[in-house]
Amino acid sequence: MSERPHFARVALIGLGLIGSSIARAVKQIGLADELVATDASAAVRDRAAEIRLADRIAATNADAVRDADLVIACVPVGACAEVAASIAPHLKAGAIVSDVGSVKGAVLRAMCPLLPPSVHFIPAHPVAGTENSGPDAGFAELFINRWCILTPPEGIDAAALEKLTGFWRALGANVEVMSAEHHDLVLAVTSHLPHLIAYTIVGTADELEDVTRSEVLKFSAGGFRDFTRIAASDPTMWRDVFLTNKDAVLEMLGAFQEDLSKLTRAIRRGDGEALFDHFTRTRAIRRGIVDLGQETASADFGRPHGPLPKTPSS
Amino acid sequence: MSERPHFARVALIGLGLIGSSIARAVKQIGLADELVATDASAAVRDRAAEIRLADRIAATNADAVRDADLVIACVPVGACAEVAASIAPHLKAGAIVSDVGSVKGAVLRAMCPLLPPSVHFIPAHPVAGTENSGPDAGFAELFINRWCILTPPEGIDAAALEKLTGFWRALGANVEVMSAEHHDLVLAVTSHLPHLIAYTIVGTADELEDVTRSEVLKFSAGGFRDFTRIAASDPTMWRDVFLTNKDAVLEMLGAFQEDLSKLTRAIRRGDGEALFDHFTRTRAIRRGIVDLGQETASADFGRPHGPLPKTPSS
Repeated sequence: MSERPHFARVALIGLGLIGSSIARAVKQIGLADELVATDASAAVRDRAAEIRLADRIAATNADAVRDADLVIACVPVGACAEVAASIAPHLKAGAIVSDVGSVKGAVLRAMCPLLPPSVHFIPAHPVAGTENSGPDAGFAELFINRWCILTPPEGIDAAALEKLTGFWRALGANVEVMSAEHHDLVLAVTSHLPHLIAYTIVGTADELEDVTRSEVLKFSAGGFRDFTRIAASDPTMWRDVFLTNKDAVLEMLGAFQEDLSKLTRAIRRGDGEALFDHFTRTRAIRRGIVDLGQETASADFGRPHGPLPKTPSS
Repeated sequence: MSERPHFARVALIGLGLIGSSIARAVKQIGLADELVATDASAAVRDRAAEIRLADRIAATNADAVRDADLVIACVPVGACAEVAASIAPHLKAGAIVSDVGSVKGAVLRAMCPLLPPSVHFIPAHPVAGTENSGPDAGFAELFINRWCILTPPEGIDAAALEKLTGFWRALGANVEVMSAEHHDLVLAVTSHLPHLIAYTIVGTADELEDVTRSEVLKFSAGGFRDFTRIAASDPTMWRDVFLTNKDAVLEMLGAFQEDLSKLTRAIRRGDGEALFDHFTRTRAIRRGIVDLGQETASADFGRPHGPLPKTPSS
């Protein structure tokens, strides 16, 4: 277990759900003497200042990263290259530079060539989030017992890697190190494909001729509503994920299509045994996720249920 | 608003999640002078007696329905015909007979010809549930603010329809009446297709060569875990749904496949605008479901998050 590190100055670029959650956690734990933050949007910077997300809100990326020991770009994957270019001339030698993007190969390729060799660049992906976006959506506990995956380039400085590992552990996360390529394959199935499927089915339900939108909403408790949560995620972030992890997503989509064809065929042929066997197997997976602390054991995700009126009517 | 009805004797056949939830609610509200229940499984009957789910646990369907004013079959759709045959000779004239199946056309066709003309047969589907099964999984509040769809055959007795409507309203549900055919189409998209997709993707993730099961479980918070809830539902019930609502499910599957092809093409071509537009549209649907009280507004379904340790380490 690495010791909890301390930073003289941490800089966050981007104050959406992830950036603002990191900011709250860093301040709450006292991981840095000074926390500086910025965002491309003036409205977000104003809001961040208003709710005191950081010790100082900088107007530009260049200003934010000056003298920082740790810089984290908390922006959509497609904005990473631009951030790297804007901060490169202003980074302190020896600084750790990281990100939180859901795709790692593309981030590595986009940012690495633009950053000076005097900094330690370690891409990171905290596998955590909610369907909400923006500086008000974040909360300090978001990363507790979630995994943060680091994908350091070969030959990375061991002390820098340990320091970033300690940072994420301090935020409550478990840290795992793997190659960017493997990360992109794993996340394609545990995150990107589920989002694509959810976005698809929610769109499908909204465009039917024979079933009204009102009916879809009313009877959504039959299962549909579970899909709407991740289909409500940030559109910019997810556009970038699919554009930058195309190959792995298409590969997983191929596997999904094969399996869907198999089940469709079983339905068409009335093969109850094949359906029953499949449905029995998938039941076990949830149990594994609950046992690992990645999911609540409460029924229905722990959604609240109202109380039943006990008094009989007249 | 119909008045809250009262029944001298209610009989429940089947004490899984739905049957045991109805039992708890009926007893809690005092909707019946006597509640009799049974189940095909001796182990379930024993457990039901142990936790006092009903005033009396009958050993057979025939015994359970004797003299009952309201009989509800809470069994998988595929078992409805057998239940109808077993109770038909023992039903009281004027009794209301209903069910809770997720498919209504097949239930109507299976049960109607077997029941005597002296009873009022009104198929019903409470659109509510959790991923858990069995007599211990039920709870009295399950139906509160959920919809219960009634699909009465033409020419049904108005008083019987109003009495069953009042029963479900007393359990906290909103009641809607529609044709069995339309029900099966609506539920194919709001419930059956989502389950099929969830069952598929959970199976896909479990059978990959390059990603281990351990990795799927660990990194499931990226979206995958949302799908595992409904893919943990009762295999027998869902086998029967797909076998008995084949046509509507295949129709919805066709619409879903077209939309998935469209998004896949957008990914392959790098069409960011098409992806962004689609992802923006689907965001609104969840808001509609929350506004309708069918979903919690809390982030992440309201899943609990642990507290962050505030004391810095040594």
